[in-house]
Amino acid sequence: MKKVLFATTALVMTAGVAAAEVAVSGDGRMGMIYDGNDAQFSSRARVTFTLTGESDAGLSFGGAFRVDQESDYTAGYAGSERSAARGTAGAVWISGTYGKLSMGDVVGAAEAAIGDLPEVGYTDGEFGGDIEEINYLVGDGENEDQGPTILYEYTVNNISFFASATDGSNNSTYGVAGSDEGEDVPSDSVAYSLAVKYEGSNWWAALSYSEADVYDLDPTSTSVTASASELALAGGASFNNFSVMATYLKYDDRFVSGPVLGDDEFIVGGFAVDATLEETIGLGATYQMDAILVEGFYRKDKYDLIGGGSESYDSFGIGADYDLGGGAVLAGGIIDTDYLDDTVADIGVKFKF
Amino acid sequence: MKKVLFATTALVMTAGVAAAEVAVSGDGRMGMIYDGNDAQFSSRARVTFTLTGESDAGLSFGGAFRVDQESDYTAGYAGSERSAARGTAGAVWISGTYGKLSMGDVVGAAEAAIGDLPEVGYTDGEFGGDIEEINYLVGDGENEDQGPTILYEYTVNNISFFASATDGSNNSTYGVAGSDEGEDVPSDSVAYSLAVKYEGSNWWAALSYSEADVYDLDPTSTSVTASASELALAGGASFNNFSVMATYLKYDDRFVSGPVLGDDEFIVGGFAVDATLEETIGLGATYQMDAILVEGFYRKDKYDLIGGGSESYDSFGIGADYDLGGGAVLAGGIIDTDYLDDTVADIGVKFKF
Amino acid sequence: MKKVLFATTALVMTAGVAAAEVAVSGDGRMGMIYDGNDAQFSSRARVTFTLTGESDAGLSFGGAFRVDQESDYTAGYAGSERSAARGTAGAVWISGTYGKLSMGDVVGAAEAAIGDLPEVGYTDGEFGGDIEEINYLVGDGENEDQGPTILYEYTVNNISFFASATDGSNNSTYGVAGSDEGEDVPSDSVAYSLAVKYEGSNWWAALSYSEADVYDLDPTSTSVTASASELALAGGASFNNFSVMATYLKYDDRFVSGPVLGDDEFIVGGFAVDATLEETIGLGATYQMDAILVEGFYRKDKYDLIGGGSESYDSFGIGADYDLGGGAVLAGGIIDTDYLDDTVADIGVKFKF
Repeated sequence: MKKVLFATTALVMTAGVAAAEVAVSGDGRMGMIYDGNDAQFSSRARVTFTLTGESDAGLSFGGAFRVDQESDYTAGYAGSERSAARGTAGAVWISGTYGKLSMGDVVGAAEAAIGDLPEVGYTDGEFGGDIEEINYLVGDGENEDQGPTILYEYTVNNISFFASATDGSNNSTYGVAGSDEGEDVPSDSVAYSLAVKYEGSNWWAALSYSEADVYDLDPTSTSVTASASELALAGGASFNNFSVMATYLKYDDRFVSGPVLGDDEFIVGGFAVDATLEETIGLGATYQMDAILVEGFYRKDKYDLIGGGSESYDSFGIGADYDLGGGAVLAGGIIDTDYLDDTVADIGVKFKF
Repeated sequence: MKKVLFATTALVMTAGVAAAEVAVSGDGRMGMIYDGNDAQFSSRARVTFTLTGESDAGLSFGGAFRVDQESDYTAGYAGSERSAARGTAGAVWISGTYGKLSMGDVVGAAEAAIGDLPEVGYTDGEFGGDIEEINYLVGDGENEDQGPTILYEYTVNNISFFASATDGSNNSTYGVAGSDEGEDVPSDSVAYSLAVKYEGSNWWAALSYSEADVYDLDPTSTSVTASASELALAGGASFNNFSVMATYLKYDDRFVSGPVLGDDEFIVGGFAVDATLEETIGLGATYQMDAILVEGFYRKDKYDLIGGGSESYDSFGIGADYDLGGGAVLAGGIIDTDYLDDTVADIGVKFKF
Repeated sequence: MKKVLFATTALVMTAGVAAAEVAVSGDGRMGMIYDGNDAQFSSRARVTFTLTGESDAGLSFGGAFRVDQESDYTAGYAGSERSAARGTAGAVWISGTYGKLSMGDVVGAAEAAIGDLPEVGYTDGEFGGDIEEINYLVGDGENEDQGPTILYEYTVNNISFFASATDGSNNSTYGVAGSDEGEDVPSDSVAYSLAVKYEGSNWWAALSYSEADVYDLDPTSTSVTASASELALAGGASFNNFSVMATYLKYDDRFVSGPVLGDDEFIVGGFAVDATLEETIGLGATYQMDAILVEGFYRKDKYDLIGGGSESYDSFGIGADYDLGGGAVLAGGIIDTDYLDDTVADIGVKFKF
């Protein structure tokens, strides 16, 4: 038996007004991962809610989140407080002629303009630790303890402007009154990111600048922090079935900690700090031919070690997708990265519902 | 691409029988909160499921819960076991000519009859710690360790009767056989609440009486507890665009603990007890003019300190909503309360989907 | 107001291709449980997503999970990592003329072929600790620390073949590259289960064989484990309104630990081991007459105690369902089991939406 679903809301509708809607879509995947030692089964199923509405004056508004983003663990932050119902997963937005304003777990302006390198494999790069994702200063973890991020986007002709920020208060959900966090919690500066992108007929270029506090040098004080900055430049082009992109990111004072690098350590504010990330270079290419899509990327990260000297970490990835139609894609990928000291691979099917 | 959703169930449908349905609706909000020290971004997106059906004999049944109520953390009880799938969030019900019977995380009879003071701001009072919510003895936390609450409602002519209870067993989910909780777990008395409400053409009045154990005076015994009681009286009226309400609650033996009051403490059963809540007075008013709604409330709580003396806590709130149509409302509010020692405010947009 | 829901996906649809769909269904229940000491209220509401699609070549694919399966706690494994978004709850599948291949938290082959004893009461046996569920070696907990299970099903004429396995790596989600679990984490052998079932017009018979590591005898080594095996035989028949089934399971080296049995203990690899489960006998019967369904089961588990001697645990259950139509069923049950040392009962209503 099949039944059409109905959504009841508290709205009083007037004729001619577009109905507010909740759209339900899903995705899934199944296959195998070779993690450098073992072959392992890996599968998942997810559902996404997309909320849309329009005010009487024609202002669009909406929101989106996945079911698994409502659970602290499955959002990938065990023990922390990620939740669309608390503004730290998913997003809400309003948009009109003046642009689009989003709030929640949105990307920073730099990532909105430039994006990441191509995702390979049926797990979209997860089997290789998502190394194809550029580690943007704003939006990729550094300022997520400040709660929801705000992102503004505006496009005129071929030029798009992006601006994003967090509020500078280290409260991972929102300002619960009475928590007096300004007095008790170490406070960061406002983290922000600005970007501009030009899109031609078969090429694009983007530039961004971002600042965020990455370390409380003295956790007992709220005044001494290391403020890191990021300058990013990127561009891409498409010709025939080919598409290529390149990106270069230059950092200042971006301290990174132990898990990544096992070298000399420097204690900053009680934390072990290994190194500063100095620059990242990323290259990506895709080739589409009928139902087949071939993708590859190369990435190099340069670190200055605190104890002196420097190190480079290289990562390569290549993958192929075969579109089975109806929302099913057969895909496989290989990633070789210095971060893992291993060559890893996956193969499987991914679905859209 | 848009696709109509279908729900498949195991039901064998016969012609003329109303289909069981799952309705999906949503809400969202975005804006800023001033918490007395900092301005902070605050946003959220949520989805609600409303389940409805009807038996062959015309008995209605249903249920409702939100996605975020399926996660222990996001249900607001970190480390505890709140879940619609376990009866401690959301609710299920059956209703017919004899009235409506609900089970789950339902309100107590007193709250069902009287309700709370008006919610102000785009976060519906959350920015002020939801101080507009009357702290009812049954249903607002005191007896939630007893698992699902049951609520019965029956209306004849202008009079509505309400009765609610929990089962007296301190098992936050349900009676898993073999836990032998009657022997191992400190057991409370059955908590219950009774209420009656009369609704005239433009006025209403309600009266309620509730009892619940608020303290295990000796946690090593199951027999010595403080049984608190609550007597509540409330009424309201509407004239032209105005609507007002007033409520008075008188308590006996309602011990409250440390976090609220920093004064003299008395150790009861291993807990630090500060005071007894003696009475609460609440006033609310709303004024609707076209798309604008203005709301305000005043609340006074009186405590007798265990060490002698008494204290009063005053709370004020005022807010305004502007209906943008289509499910969007622009709203802001200010709350000043002795509980926070701060004046807090919010402004933003809230959505219904 | 009622609104038809629409699901937007990223699919590019071509005419004539079946649309990928997300179906939303639900269930609920409310009633009382007598746990041997107290009567307790127990209720719940749940929602299930069923994802379906079809490739251009006619390959079916899909997935299914419940909202509460996205939360670590509510999936019943507090502190662990059960999630449909991580492959350890719910399932995804593809199927075609060659059979059906599923991955995720699927049943093992033995359970797919044989199933469990009849569920009684409105909580479907939960009030009695789900003692009607046969404790299959593969799929019922022993190998769930290996992440997703794979299940293959193929039917030709009246014969169905089933094969299931886990990957042998003790990684409860999937092989995150770089975890080097092959070196750090105690590894089990691949757990697998094979089964065959014949279904006649009014009878069926099934046979299965399963192997899984149940204990790391020395957790500091990856090489010494106890490999348990299970041989199962089952059959059933239906005549008039009656349906009966019987099952016999014989185990080798299936060590079980403390919580179940309070007798002599033997320390194996740092764990206290009481006994080995030697065999399980299960009988089930159902009688359907119009809207009334009567169900009953008997189960006997035999253990060899490590310190010498043996013990048997008997369990009985009986229940009745009355179909109210439209998805509502009135149901009650009684279970008496040596595992609880108690007679427990439930009565209530259960709903399908």
